[in-house]
Amino acid sequence: MGKTAFGAFAERSLRDFTVEAVAKCLADAGVEPSAVGAFYLGNFAGPEFVGQSHLAPYVAGEAGFIGIPCTRFENACASSGSAFYHAYAAVAAGMVEWALVAGVEKMTSQPGPRVTEILAEAGDVGGEGRAGATFPALFAMIARRHMHVYGTTREHLAAVAVKNHANGAKNALAHLRKPITLAQALAGKPVCDPLTVYDCSLVSDGAAAVLLRAAQPGDIRVLGIAQASDYVALDQKPDITTLAANGRAAAKAFAMAGLGPRQVDLLEVHDCFTIAEILAIEDMGFVAKGEGGPATASGYTALEGEKPVNTSGGLKSKGHPVGATGVGQICDLVIQMRGIAEPERQVKRREVGLAQNLGGSGATSVVTILGR
Amino acid sequence: MGKTAFGAFAERSLRDFTVEAVAKCLADAGVEPSAVGAFYLGNFAGPEFVGQSHLAPYVAGEAGFIGIPCTRFENACASSGSAFYHAYAAVAAGMVEWALVAGVEKMTSQPGPRVTEILAEAGDVGGEGRAGATFPALFAMIARRHMHVYGTTREHLAAVAVKNHANGAKNALAHLRKPITLAQALAGKPVCDPLTVYDCSLVSDGAAAVLLRAAQPGDIRVLGIAQASDYVALDQKPDITTLAANGRAAAKAFAMAGLGPRQVDLLEVHDCFTIAEILAIEDMGFVAKGEGGPATASGYTALEGEKPVNTSGGLKSKGHPVGATGVGQICDLVIQMRGIAEPERQVKRREVGLAQNLGGSGATSVVTILGR
Repeated sequence: MGKTAFGAFAERSLRDFTVEAVAKCLADAGVEPSAVGAFYLGNFAGPEFVGQSHLAPYVAGEAGFIGIPCTRFENACASSGSAFYHAYAAVAAGMVEWALVAGVEKMTSQPGPRVTEILAEAGDVGGEGRAGATFPALFAMIARRHMHVYGTTREHLAAVAVKNHANGAKNALAHLRKPITLAQALAGKPVCDPLTVYDCSLVSDGAAAVLLRAAQPGDIRVLGIAQASDYVALDQKPDITTLAANGRAAAKAFAMAGLGPRQVDLLEVHDCFTIAEILAIEDMGFVAKGEGGPATASGYTALEGEKPVNTSGGLKSKGHPVGATGVGQICDLVIQMRGIAEPERQVKRREVGLAQNLGGSGATSVVTILGR
Repeated sequence: MGKTAFGAFAERSLRDFTVEAVAKCLADAGVEPSAVGAFYLGNFAGPEFVGQSHLAPYVAGEAGFIGIPCTRFENACASSGSAFYHAYAAVAAGMVEWALVAGVEKMTSQPGPRVTEILAEAGDVGGEGRAGATFPALFAMIARRHMHVYGTTREHLAAVAVKNHANGAKNALAHLRKPITLAQALAGKPVCDPLTVYDCSLVSDGAAAVLLRAAQPGDIRVLGIAQASDYVALDQKPDITTLAANGRAAAKAFAMAGLGPRQVDLLEVHDCFTIAEILAIEDMGFVAKGEGGPATASGYTALEGEKPVNTSGGLKSKGHPVGATGVGQICDLVIQMRGIAEPERQVKRREVGLAQNLGGSGATSVVTILGR
């Protein structure tokens, strides 16, 4: 696996980032570019962010593997989780020996309002978008409803931010390495009630890559993996306090792995907003419905807690270069499972890791369980 | 399989088109939406053409199969050929019983200059694009070089247009149903020398869908399939008179099928420009290098010829809704192979069909060989 730093890098291009992550990945594996049999690229909106499409061969030409099948996968913020899912399928089927999966996004080249507009295209543009709802608004509605139904509080949301900032501050590749207090999180500038700036993930540039093969002794293995879908528009979901695709994907991935939440040692989940982390641990069965906030506030998901969640800092602090996030989560699990995280954030129980990558406001979810 | 008409339909949406093609496909197969196990959507630039991304679940919600993995594939004009390739892999691997593959593009909602700009993003924007080269310019350079090296003439290019217009005029689902004469083709308004308006494919709306399963007796089968890549920028190719990805994909697909060009009865090839059809039949070994033009002019690829090419009318006359083209070609082969084409364009030898779907100026090529 290989990752670039996540952050705002005005001088660097989408292709630069991807080539760096790919080169790090191949060096980490000791594999030559010529051995790569297929290239899977997760990217949400390169055409709109940087004006270039046909990105898979465009990157492959620079990365040193031309000729092989090169394909771009787009599933909003789950683009590279989805690319990983399809690459896993090809390797498992014996169609390719070494599959290289990368994810990338270069977001900071566009002004903020345009970034918000591009992100909103992952929602229901003709309905939600026409009504003026950008992503903070969609997740604010989800949060408000969760507060109403389950008694979740602003302090619960803020606890997610405080934890993830604490973790990300210890991650050398994180975008925002700044611990914050509960008081700071609660006093954040409002973005869309009840969410403040501290409830929202970052607009970042970056890339990540992993190399897959049929598992050999010593390899970290995919024990279970599943991709699931749901309606794009919130108003088509029977209950917006549950993102059904998370539960569907987790149930399949757990069944495939023959494991349950109890056996998972650490998680990387898709905290595009603080409420999304609460939904993720609830929807996948790590805590009972409605208990995500209190569990977080109690330290259950902290670095030293029973189920460390987002030891990388999560999207909130590590950054969220949209198309890179899914593969980035896989890399972050591998870093912990190999025991090579910064000592101040290295977890002790690290046999089984779970990554959950969400697309949009829940129309796609990819859940991957890694083990030995 | 199911196809919509291709054309300019101001009042219809990207989702409408896809749902129509999917519904026709499921009705054709007698399969319920609930039986679909995975959804593969090829789409080049929906986010830029219609301002909506995350298109796979967005379509699936209306088409009646939510919950399953739904993924968008983007490989420029080979987007749905690539989606078909990945769906084939999943079915062949036993990961899914019924895989639904659709392709769609809704292009006419943008003004012409913007369409040209969006299409140019499938080339090398930082190099070719900065130099002002849009796709007609890239293929004009290829054509001019082919004329210089092999003596290909304007009449040879025009012969492709005349043939494809003649075929498309007989196809009820074609965009432009207008036979043209050689004199008309030669006198077409110049677009980019040596290409006239009659050398360029159409800007169209439309969708196509096919359903895949592990082959049962009586099914039309995928005998061979391969996807290959090449550099995006023309200046990185050692010889622009050959699109190397075509040869790579065809060689693999023929090897998998255990067949050669001799056994192929009919072809649907990617004539985004007339020169591209000439390259396709040369690069895949149907004629010797440099003989594509003379072979076309001699009637070798005509409806009544030895190797009918683009009996649908091709991109030139049938239309080229970019993301729909690859799956559309599969449908067009199936229509001929079942013997259900309009009688005036139905071919007699129809046991083995080959589809070739090109991305951009040749950075992606997908070749599929169908048989019984």
